[in-house]
Amino acid sequence: MIDAASLAELDAALPGRVSTAPADLTLYSRDQGPVLEPVLPGAVVHAHTVADVQALLRWATRHAVAIVSRGAGSGVSGGAHATTGSVILSLERMNRILEINADDETAVVEAGVINTELNDAVAEYGLMYAPDPASYRWSTIGGNVATNAGGLRCAKYGVTRDSVLALDVVLADGTLISTGHRTFKGVAGYDLTALMTGSEGTLGVIVGITVRLRYLPRSVHTLAAFFEDFPRAAAGVLAIGRARVQPAILELLDGRTLEALDGAHGSDLRSRGGSLLLVRTDGYGAAAEAEAIRTALVGLGASVSEEDSEEADRLVDLRRHSRGDEVDDLYRVGEDVAVPKSQLVHYVAALEAMAERHNVQLKVVAHAGDGNLHPTFWVERSEGAEAQERLEAALDESIRCALDLGGTITGEHGVGQYKRRWLAWEQSPEVLRLQAEIKKVFDPLGILNPGKAIVS
Amino acid sequence: MIDAASLAELDAALPGRVSTAPADLTLYSRDQGPVLEPVLPGAVVHAHTVADVQALLRWATRHAVAIVSRGAGSGVSGGAHATTGSVILSLERMNRILEINADDETAVVEAGVINTELNDAVAEYGLMYAPDPASYRWSTIGGNVATNAGGLRCAKYGVTRDSVLALDVVLADGTLISTGHRTFKGVAGYDLTALMTGSEGTLGVIVGITVRLRYLPRSVHTLAAFFEDFPRAAAGVLAIGRARVQPAILELLDGRTLEALDGAHGSDLRSRGGSLLLVRTDGYGAAAEAEAIRTALVGLGASVSEEDSEEADRLVDLRRHSRGDEVDDLYRVGEDVAVPKSQLVHYVAALEAMAERHNVQLKVVAHAGDGNLHPTFWVERSEGAEAQERLEAALDESIRCALDLGGTITGEHGVGQYKRRWLAWEQSPEVLRLQAEIKKVFDPLGILNPGKAIVS
Repeated sequence: MIDAASLAELDAALPGRVSTAPADLTLYSRDQGPVLEPVLPGAVVHAHTVADVQALLRWATRHAVAIVSRGAGSGVSGGAHATTGSVILSLERMNRILEINADDETAVVEAGVINTELNDAVAEYGLMYAPDPASYRWSTIGGNVATNAGGLRCAKYGVTRDSVLALDVVLADGTLISTGHRTFKGVAGYDLTALMTGSEGTLGVIVGITVRLRYLPRSVHTLAAFFEDFPRAAAGVLAIGRARVQPAILELLDGRTLEALDGAHGSDLRSRGGSLLLVRTDGYGAAAEAEAIRTALVGLGASVSEEDSEEADRLVDLRRHSRGDEVDDLYRVGEDVAVPKSQLVHYVAALEAMAERHNVQLKVVAHAGDGNLHPTFWVERSEGAEAQERLEAALDESIRCALDLGGTITGEHGVGQYKRRWLAWEQSPEVLRLQAEIKKVFDPLGILNPGKAIVS
Repeated sequence: MIDAASLAELDAALPGRVSTAPADLTLYSRDQGPVLEPVLPGAVVHAHTVADVQALLRWATRHAVAIVSRGAGSGVSGGAHATTGSVILSLERMNRILEINADDETAVVEAGVINTELNDAVAEYGLMYAPDPASYRWSTIGGNVATNAGGLRCAKYGVTRDSVLALDVVLADGTLISTGHRTFKGVAGYDLTALMTGSEGTLGVIVGITVRLRYLPRSVHTLAAFFEDFPRAAAGVLAIGRARVQPAILELLDGRTLEALDGAHGSDLRSRGGSLLLVRTDGYGAAAEAEAIRTALVGLGASVSEEDSEEADRLVDLRRHSRGDEVDDLYRVGEDVAVPKSQLVHYVAALEAMAERHNVQLKVVAHAGDGNLHPTFWVERSEGAEAQERLEAALDESIRCALDLGGTITGEHGVGQYKRRWLAWEQSPEVLRLQAEIKKVFDPLGILNPGKAIVS
């Protein structure tokens, strides 16, 4: 625990920034991931400036206090959960867009800028910030970078890392460094920018980000392809790949997900098929690409409608929210595996079989263009501990199966706190050791988000 | 130096793989970069298998011998130059394509596979390996990864890092590790794959690479836009950007480069204008994109011809070889800075002014879509030391100027040995220190390509 004298010192160093109000401690104690063990932080600090972050970390180094930094807390792996004796550093109020360089096609933002606000600001220049996690309306760019967030448009435009050029990072001892370059290309020294991206606050606190922007597409076409069942829709993903057409968005939704959407939004998706493949093409070739995709999918027996743009927008929007508003807990866990594309059909069938075998509920959406799946497994809380064990068994098996097929335990959500138990299933002891040693280089006292992201 | 007993031990461990023949030592003593001080290695080892590499590194660890690994030796920054007492590890003979997964859109190759051979092998599946350094006909994928090589198609498809999914790496002590994932997305743990990419053999020896392939474009359009002078052509790059059209290739050649090409290939490029902007679009939107670009450039006064495909291919091919066949030395140095796109016109004008002021020769080509320039400065060898000093002054000024404009000392060639003197101009002491510490994690004895890539 943090003693009163230390807290007083912190409050004096950062007047008006430190809260120990019980409501704040509760509010900032967790993100959207399952909570293994509820813990309250010792304090919450709202940084307004880089200097605030530096002051906090100097204090944390002096007193060996763990710092859990967070943006909006939209993560789903527990990467921002409080740990015992920790202080939460919220970067939400560092929310200024510092530069938009329309000719350079770059922007510089503070960590707390919300994803959609950056996109709103650059749209008038014909530009977009491509990474679009489902939480884009409330997640921060800093959090997106800390987790190397994915999203729907990754299929064509890549993940967050592919849009990050340079970072300003406060190290564990309060030193501010800059990594990377403002240019699209640069190979001077080791790629510390990529090392920081996805490190979940365990190597430093990302306070500023220089991003590469992409061209806002002039033309967008969206197809909704309904299939009889889920494995057939997954086969459609392969057919699009074999046609060698690159969609901007390629989302796969199973029947249970369609039912849930219909229930929540009054749509009639489930009545149109047992599974939906939602395909968006964009850019100068969008119409021709959509046509090539339609041909490929109709050939597989899909019922394909080209939506007008309003309906298309609505479908993509529905998909973005298809995990629903439920927050994960120990009875309901959304997964994030990725498998090689050729294994999609097989994996989707295996998931359905394991849900049945373990007697758990399952719905699945997938960023199918990347082979990245989000199965959600759940049991009824009222069924108690035995049901929870069934859930755990299904989760474990789904992970094992993805790894056996050449996949990964996490495509875009990060390891956080929740997925650490599976990390050694994927990575060798030597790789785990190297990561722990790298962490020691950046964080010799182990105060940066301990117990997250890696096994140390 | 390596003593005879140690060499005998190496020869016994790797029978038939070790050469100390003087011709081999000379041939493998350097890459294509300027040689600051000629050094012969103690031996050259041709690895045929991963086990060979492991055996060599176990031996090197026992005897604390420096290992300089190399592919084809096509690098231009001296990253593969021999250093005193070193052994050269050539990976050329590890040249098998291990897997082509057409549905996954991935391939697995040994480090010594030549870039163009991979492209030839995957073309029949409608796929391509996008990174295409000018040396693509002879450079190896392993070398491309070790330097995070760029190329012409980066403007649209990204650099080598953006196509690398997973690596097999032999560590300094001979341990084999695997980093990354076979899936397009994956965020488990730190991004060791990106850390290795561009580390120039200083963190480990990359022996196997899993790459992401892209779709071979069905349609390609190439425009040749001739401008009155170089700054006007550079302004054309900005105009294309402002039209928000993404070319696959966007290359800028100055008048001196056109003259050199005409001299070498009998073309008539210089008579058509004082500078050439070569633009290729590809994919389903290629025709419409080319038309939008033509409109933008004609508006700037360019003389734009749409080439038929044979002539277009010839022009791109000429550009690929526009650095000529000269190997850099202390009297002729090709640079590799990158600047933010908005600074291209300014930087191009500054380069011309500094060449005149320092009385050195200059020609420039640029991957203009990335703001990555390759100015070549030279003086006549017969002019001796005074001329070499003028050259050095011009080089230093060109680097300073690029940094002042927000650029980097190296866009795609790497720091190697030659550019280390400029690294501290770009990176802070703290960033340099972190890199040195990371190197110690991977290479505690400092045997992996010492004196390259970073300042330690």
